[in-house]
Amino acid sequence: MTLHPAPEALLFDVFGTCVDWRSSIAAEGERLGARLGLGAVDWFAFADAWRARYQPQMETVRSGRRPWTKLPVLNREALDEVLPAFGLDALPLAERDAFNHVWTRLTPWPDVVPALGRLKRRFILAPNSNADIASGVRLARHAGLPWDTILGAEIGQGFKPQPQVYLRSVAALELDPAAVVMVAAHNGDLRAAAALGLRTAFVPRPTEHGPQQRSDLHPDGDFTLVARDFTDLADQLLAT
Amino acid sequence: MTLHPAPEALLFDVFGTCVDWRSSIAAEGERLGARLGLGAVDWFAFADAWRARYQPQMETVRSGRRPWTKLPVLNREALDEVLPAFGLDALPLAERDAFNHVWTRLTPWPDVVPALGRLKRRFILAPNSNADIASGVRLARHAGLPWDTILGAEIGQGFKPQPQVYLRSVAALELDPAAVVMVAAHNGDLRAAAALGLRTAFVPRPTEHGPQQRSDLHPDGDFTLVARDFTDLADQLLAT
Repeated sequence: MTLHPAPEALLFDVFGTCVDWRSSIAAEGERLGARLGLGAVDWFAFADAWRARYQPQMETVRSGRRPWTKLPVLNREALDEVLPAFGLDALPLAERDAFNHVWTRLTPWPDVVPALGRLKRRFILAPNSNADIASGVRLARHAGLPWDTILGAEIGQGFKPQPQVYLRSVAALELDPAAVVMVAAHNGDLRAAAALGLRTAFVPRPTEHGPQQRSDLHPDGDFTLVARDFTDLADQLLAT
Repeated sequence: MTLHPAPEALLFDVFGTCVDWRSSIAAEGERLGARLGLGAVDWFAFADAWRARYQPQMETVRSGRRPWTKLPVLNREALDEVLPAFGLDALPLAERDAFNHVWTRLTPWPDVVPALGRLKRRFILAPNSNADIASGVRLARHAGLPWDTILGAEIGQGFKPQPQVYLRSVAALELDPAAVVMVAAHNGDLRAAAALGLRTAFVPRPTEHGPQQRSDLHPDGDFTLVARDFTDLADQLLAT
């Protein structure tokens, strides 16, 4: 594959694409439950319920109903909303605050870190995530993601798929959109990037939402490339 | 040395503190001169003259006389101003544009990269420089500076010593100023940081401006620590 202009930077979706939020949250929930003697909780269902609040929470900002707010604040509010349905109303405030930081302690998919190490030699690497800079830094240090800088929601003062998140991240690198590849496991993210002139790479994560996942199993858009996983992504991009 | 609260992040001045801009610019000037047959030019004097335009250029932004402008734009204007005095009026536009990128190709002082590698295991590391994000990323990749993210002027939409550059960089990490150490070879930079509640570390660079340097040879302020070089800085910070 030959691209003109040659890509200079790769931007990555993170939650789902680079890290397995569902298993990580479930595992940390299990440990929390064991430590506090919380009894039987379906922590995978809990992770799904928490994540289900993600888009509605961001929509309160995207719609203008509330001013720009960093994602951890939204996640913390959503946590309070979700706990009662799982019989966890009594979880103390300090435990809630600590558990909310699980989003900076997520485990990368096993193909991610080796591939990013290979790609970093050739390309500028940065997340273009809905996470804020502080969370992006801490997650990168935890998971070993070798970003050159943290781009995304805080740079764009919005949440994907709002155009300014892509455009201000690209502008912060002083690049044209066509010199940047947006990498994601989510068709909607890539369609938004493609509409703004970025290159796009679809990498499926068919178990991001668990074994019953129905969405984003296949690419659904005119994307620059499609890769089986990050190893394949690196192979394809480094062959150009 | 024991600090309460323990530092979580280190912010670094870059030009002069981490990288040797003067020798790097002189060396690249020599290569440019040889390639284009420019004749005898005192490239160290050229580097000094270019750098002498640095503070006055930033002051046009700090004073409000012009809107926020990224540093490479200011450096490019200053380059045009400085070339005639060195008989370089005829330097073509494309060569000027390319030479202006020398600020992303500076050489680190030899103690910097090993020490940052040691410090990165314990602390969040970021530049708090007057450079923009794009230049910070490219310089880090060139010089091997293992930043976790690029903070500084572009995050603060100003130039040091304006308070917002320090405060917004600290806020982007979701830390209190007292949990952050500002590291610099320049007393003025550290005094501004200290006044805002950051911890401070002075590391002298007695030949930043060449063998005749008179300024910033010694710490001149109530700084948290003083180190001989980055090796000593890492020794002290990792012993806490």
